[in-house]
Amino acid sequence: MSAASFPAPNSLLPMDRTLDVVGIGNAIVDVLIQTDDRFLEDHGLSKGTMALIDEIAAEGLYATLGPGLETSGGSAANTLAGIAQLGGKAAFIGRVRDDQLGAIFAHDIRSVGARFDTPAAASGPSTARCLILVTPDAQRTMCTYLGASVGLDPGDLDLDLVPQAKVLYLEGYLWDSEAAKQAFLAAAAAMRASGGQVALSLSDAFCVDRHRESFLELVDGHVDILFANEMEITSLYKADSFEDAAHQVRGRCQVAALTRSEQGSVLLSGDQTLLIEPFRLGPLVDTTGAGDLYAAGFLHGYTGGASLERCGRLGSLCAGQVVTQLGPRPQASLPALVAQHLD
Amino acid sequence: MSAASFPAPNSLLPMDRTLDVVGIGNAIVDVLIQTDDRFLEDHGLSKGTMALIDEIAAEGLYATLGPGLETSGGSAANTLAGIAQLGGKAAFIGRVRDDQLGAIFAHDIRSVGARFDTPAAASGPSTARCLILVTPDAQRTMCTYLGASVGLDPGDLDLDLVPQAKVLYLEGYLWDSEAAKQAFLAAAAAMRASGGQVALSLSDAFCVDRHRESFLELVDGHVDILFANEMEITSLYKADSFEDAAHQVRGRCQVAALTRSEQGSVLLSGDQTLLIEPFRLGPLVDTTGAGDLYAAGFLHGYTGGASLERCGRLGSLCAGQVVTQLGPRPQASLPALVAQHLD
Repeated sequence: MSAASFPAPNSLLPMDRTLDVVGIGNAIVDVLIQTDDRFLEDHGLSKGTMALIDEIAAEGLYATLGPGLETSGGSAANTLAGIAQLGGKAAFIGRVRDDQLGAIFAHDIRSVGARFDTPAAASGPSTARCLILVTPDAQRTMCTYLGASVGLDPGDLDLDLVPQAKVLYLEGYLWDSEAAKQAFLAAAAAMRASGGQVALSLSDAFCVDRHRESFLELVDGHVDILFANEMEITSLYKADSFEDAAHQVRGRCQVAALTRSEQGSVLLSGDQTLLIEPFRLGPLVDTTGAGDLYAAGFLHGYTGGASLERCGRLGSLCAGQVVTQLGPRPQASLPALVAQHLD
Repeated sequence: MSAASFPAPNSLLPMDRTLDVVGIGNAIVDVLIQTDDRFLEDHGLSKGTMALIDEIAAEGLYATLGPGLETSGGSAANTLAGIAQLGGKAAFIGRVRDDQLGAIFAHDIRSVGARFDTPAAASGPSTARCLILVTPDAQRTMCTYLGASVGLDPGDLDLDLVPQAKVLYLEGYLWDSEAAKQAFLAAAAAMRASGGQVALSLSDAFCVDRHRESFLELVDGHVDILFANEMEITSLYKADSFEDAAHQVRGRCQVAALTRSEQGSVLLSGDQTLLIEPFRLGPLVDTTGAGDLYAAGFLHGYTGGASLERCGRLGSLCAGQVVTQLGPRPQASLPALVAQHLD
């Protein structure tokens, strides 16, 4: 069967909706701090991964670190902000506290044109923070205090919003909170019932390790579009190699978009395999947000009816931009970049 | 009289003190937001200057702006942090509220090794914020909500700290709050009585315009080291030209360090005139903090007994670094830069 005889997976999308993508994730403010490998070793931190810490541990760690730069973050939130920056119609669901960091988070995502209507919690833990330790090799290692974001539960969820979008996007990190996981599953069921598609990012290799059985079941039956990097997809299938993992995931969802850092990305759909080259737009500064912006570019193309190859190239371009700056939200104009490199 | 026969003004410093510089200023968190000239025009903002706004106006303006990056700021605080980053012994006096932004401010200045012991206010206005609008030409235009920082008064001031330092550093912005101004004058009197020196930054041309008589009196009788840029010094003397302003200020204090952006700086001391070349270390990104870091480099050299020329070159180098990045606190190692360019 030739590739051309497959319908493109986004040809099945309901196109007459008011939103392109609605996303659910942890609403987090990032604290970007430059450090060195020695600090990671001394604190038992595994480079390139995300560890969950409680508020006391977060404050203790923060006190030992240098000055920071604060910016809105959160994996799915970065993706939805990126889609809005590209000109797509995006909405984000996540929980902040009614504190100063929560106000910053809400401002930043709304200011790029994304909808964000989840009410801030009036009591309980403060807005989530992620200490992002950036080493001289531009890798980021994350320590997250989930705070108010774990307060998200199915009761908060505006389920009416879900069938207004073509795609529901979720971050694997939600699995670290039972209530958030339940909120996600309810949303995924609502999206599937409405005829839209569900996308999942595996988020982090350790997160995959914590929730492997649940993710395996999900990918098999409930996800149309899967985003994962090399470490995450090999962890999911306990595979010996990237090729082995790619072989195992093929056919389990409509599209698997597998990112491989400086080796670009691989798209698997039906029996098609597309290799997408990376974009190198300048010196590598900070890899924070690379996967999130890849998903943003991909989904913007996907919900706009672009070919899979163009979806991949859009993802690759957005990821290529965000790694040239400090922080996970592009400070450059993404539409201008697209016009320059892809149009 | 030849230049060589003048004693260097820092040869008069008491060198046996535990601190090099103690500074008093507004304790501010900056919100860096990229915008364009049109936005400044539409909001009646004068490029390159600082306007004071109240909390309601700050929130209204913020709501119309794009996403921001938050970082500790404040003019004198940036200078003191820079001195600490250079390896100097620095202490900062300023007032935050006991809120999340106040905690960020306190963390950042302490984390570079500066002392910061002013207790946070437990009630009243929130920590000061400055909306810094960065235009494509890298200029910054500032709208400041002074919040808790105007709560600083002589009663807060740890006057015991002042005579522990060689130099007391003050920002002109303090004149916008009567209580803070009184705190400064008390500190300046204590420093002079102890045999140390007093440094003042004029801060902003509009600030000079608001407080001209008071600044003129101060420069004549109470300041040893004056920092001003071209706009500020011409505003102070209502001069027709930089040369005219420089002529008027000569001899009124031990040293006047006059900065001229891409034209470098001019040091006036006795009948000496030293021209200091600027350092160009990369593309111009954001001029926020340029004057503050010039003062940091200069005072680090000055309190270490360096020649005036080296003081100026240290200032010029630190300013040259900070304009190549977003935000007013150097993200690069200043001692490494000094080793590379000046040693």
